[in-house]
Amino acid sequence: MNSPANFPQLLPVVKPRDVPPEFIDALKSRFGAQCSTGVTVCELHGRDESSFTTVPPPAGVVFAESAQDVSDAVKLCARYKVPAIPFGVGSSVEGHLLAVQSGISIDLSRMNRILAVNAEDLTVTVEPGVTREQLNSELRSTGLFFPIDPGADASIGGMCATRASGTNAVRYGTMRENVLMLEVVTASGEVIRTGTRAKKSSAGYDLARLFIGSEGTLGVITKITLRIYPLPEAVSAAVCSFPSIAAAVTTVIETVQLGVPIARVELIDVNAIRAVNKHSKLSLREEPMLLMEFHGSATSVKEQSETVQEIASEHGGAGFEWADTPEERSRLWTARHNAYFAALQTRPGCRCLTTDTCVPISRLADALLRSVEDAEASGIPHFLVGHVGDGNFHMCYLIDPDDAEERARAEQLNHRLVRHVIELGGTCTGEHGIGLHKMGFLVEEAGAGTVAMMRTIKKALDPDNIMNPGKIFAMD
Amino acid sequence: MNSPANFPQLLPVVKPRDVPPEFIDALKSRFGAQCSTGVTVCELHGRDESSFTTVPPPAGVVFAESAQDVSDAVKLCARYKVPAIPFGVGSSVEGHLLAVQSGISIDLSRMNRILAVNAEDLTVTVEPGVTREQLNSELRSTGLFFPIDPGADASIGGMCATRASGTNAVRYGTMRENVLMLEVVTASGEVIRTGTRAKKSSAGYDLARLFIGSEGTLGVITKITLRIYPLPEAVSAAVCSFPSIAAAVTTVIETVQLGVPIARVELIDVNAIRAVNKHSKLSLREEPMLLMEFHGSATSVKEQSETVQEIASEHGGAGFEWADTPEERSRLWTARHNAYFAALQTRPGCRCLTTDTCVPISRLADALLRSVEDAEASGIPHFLVGHVGDGNFHMCYLIDPDDAEERARAEQLNHRLVRHVIELGGTCTGEHGIGLHKMGFLVEEAGAGTVAMMRTIKKALDPDNIMNPGKIFAMD
Repeated sequence: MNSPANFPQLLPVVKPRDVPPEFIDALKSRFGAQCSTGVTVCELHGRDESSFTTVPPPAGVVFAESAQDVSDAVKLCARYKVPAIPFGVGSSVEGHLLAVQSGISIDLSRMNRILAVNAEDLTVTVEPGVTREQLNSELRSTGLFFPIDPGADASIGGMCATRASGTNAVRYGTMRENVLMLEVVTASGEVIRTGTRAKKSSAGYDLARLFIGSEGTLGVITKITLRIYPLPEAVSAAVCSFPSIAAAVTTVIETVQLGVPIARVELIDVNAIRAVNKHSKLSLREEPMLLMEFHGSATSVKEQSETVQEIASEHGGAGFEWADTPEERSRLWTARHNAYFAALQTRPGCRCLTTDTCVPISRLADALLRSVEDAEASGIPHFLVGHVGDGNFHMCYLIDPDDAEERARAEQLNHRLVRHVIELGGTCTGEHGIGLHKMGFLVEEAGAGTVAMMRTIKKALDPDNIMNPGKIFAMD
Repeated sequence: MNSPANFPQLLPVVKPRDVPPEFIDALKSRFGAQCSTGVTVCELHGRDESSFTTVPPPAGVVFAESAQDVSDAVKLCARYKVPAIPFGVGSSVEGHLLAVQSGISIDLSRMNRILAVNAEDLTVTVEPGVTREQLNSELRSTGLFFPIDPGADASIGGMCATRASGTNAVRYGTMRENVLMLEVVTASGEVIRTGTRAKKSSAGYDLARLFIGSEGTLGVITKITLRIYPLPEAVSAAVCSFPSIAAAVTTVIETVQLGVPIARVELIDVNAIRAVNKHSKLSLREEPMLLMEFHGSATSVKEQSETVQEIASEHGGAGFEWADTPEERSRLWTARHNAYFAALQTRPGCRCLTTDTCVPISRLADALLRSVEDAEASGIPHFLVGHVGDGNFHMCYLIDPDDAEERARAEQLNHRLVRHVIELGGTCTGEHGIGLHKMGFLVEEAGAGTVAMMRTIKKALDPDNIMNPGKIFAMD
């Protein structure tokens, strides 16, 4: 029943593993109503925001309510050698949640409590199912906030697992820099803790950083302590249009090189703006646009924005609009927030195949312009958004998921881009992870020896390969 | 010959391993004049700045000049199962360089080239033997700098290996946040690369972060790409005296909680100031002192310093002195820079046993005041310095290295402090590492399961336990 018919061409084909009926019985007996094998529930947990839609769903879903639940579920998986796939809100775009070797989904959305806000230490401790919007809404009254914003209202556990970042990372870093402590259920079902609430530590191997970005392949994250930040005294947002992508990118490069502590700087291209204009009935200038945000004291924000406005003007930046209140800022940022869904609607039934390369900032124009040129030549509908302050951008190809030839062409464009980016000293994924279909890219980027070391660690910590198998790299 | 006579009480006693004559012959034949077994050379490589002075030196030293040299040396060690201990400049304070199980030292000081300055990307690539002062002196003409400053003129490789930080970390982070890419020689002698020059990446396990802080136990770092920063437009330094340590610490806590982006904030106590006054013939106020530095635009620096001066004044801060030129700043910071050596000279022949706890900032006063009280009661000469903006401080006990009873008492003070800090949610080591004698603390802090996971990784990556064995944790 699990045969991957119509399996996307570029996914590695692996024989699914056995999910014995005794295992399902044991699961049901332990979890009762917290366990479901219903078709709809399983199907909901067998897909994500990726363009891969054809993998059979997991055989069951456990709705965990505590680390003990996770531990018990993993112990059963370990006993029967059945894969376990942690599930947050399903916002992965790299197929992390797909049951490519069958198994069960461990849904963490019920573990959504904020356990402690230590305002005086600028830390917060949460369960993995807390989403970033939930967190910020609960923090609002404290004058603090959690800045990492990958766009989707992702779960904090999922953001850890993919080493997520998004807008704001240019100033506040990624999940790598903002996690202090993790509680993790290992592949044997043991509950361990790594890190402390202290801001820094040299106490042994940095296991927290090993789990951050491990994409569920080493264990299930069940508790997270994060750094949070005082809401800036002043926030100012701006949008500015440019005669070309090159002009916009040059503005960004010079801003970063000058050391301006800009909090956000996003690029969206003409295709995305057209989609947003149509979708939200707006009349934005149909030109490449930078969206920026400045955080700090009133004086510092003023100074930063003046500097950037000056740089932008030198490169033909025009149509500057500023916003200082939260409402105005939301309005300005509409284009960025709606770009993805607006673009999807320009081609009904399409799925988005998204690239995620990241390069050293001086190579950004080179990487970005070549990818635009290639996409234009391909004839596949596409749009571009980017966290360009970090050198990270997403070329999004709007493909017909049932058209294997089109998918293959989009994948080829991605591959060409990744090759180019690796030559430029960059990475195939800035923030989405390797997931299902970048395994080849990972080897090209890191080298076989480095990937072999990752595999050695995986094998040592998960000898039966039950934790989200088939992601990041193939095991024997 | 390797019996650890007079071995410090709290070090784990392990049988040293065999260094067969054929191995030494093979080493000499491969490395010729780059290999030494001379007593003086070996002794120089068998100690560091720690208070442990009684472990026999390594059996030989290889002066590596390339990753190939390191690889060949490690391959020979692997073949004969002889321990390999990477050596930078010997500034460890936790016994990392001691040949507790015998073996050879791999000296990396000749690998001291700066390989690439990518000013436009704010990155630099160096060999591991480059020291931080060398790096900053070579960067000077570019208008960029590398901020991490652990005090000693440590090697960049060593700073990676211990996850070092020091002053400036409160603003710029630690080695964890500032390394983009590593080249590493693994325990089998293979040369691998992890990370890219891109500012962020989600490409597989974060092996760079695993090596950072691994204290030489997983491999030898042979190349490092670091983040560097534009020299701030304005820098201003200040010192300020306080009626009590509590008043100084409260000032720091409020500064951090307000989100002032202070670049440095160091505490030194009366004992250290007295030592500095005597050593450098100064007449500083003999009161607890904060030393601060502000980086940014002229306006921002002015604003930051006004805010902090206001907070300090509320807590009795007095005798403010300001410095805006590099020369004046050096003069102001004399006390901090000379504290360690000045204090050592107050008790001839002594060694410094240094604690390194780090706590969530709100617990800093609690941890710090209790440790001062304990130290006062002990009668052991001591002084205190701290990177207090991070919640990290060092209580330094000036002990007679030949007085086992005094050492044991100092260790007990350290142990009491660590226990207290762990209760407060902190760590036993903020920046020095576990090394030889904090293994017990690591288990108390992280738990047996977490340390077992570290051991599992070590065993998988270094099955014969040849890479700096006997550090961080004991293996079977």
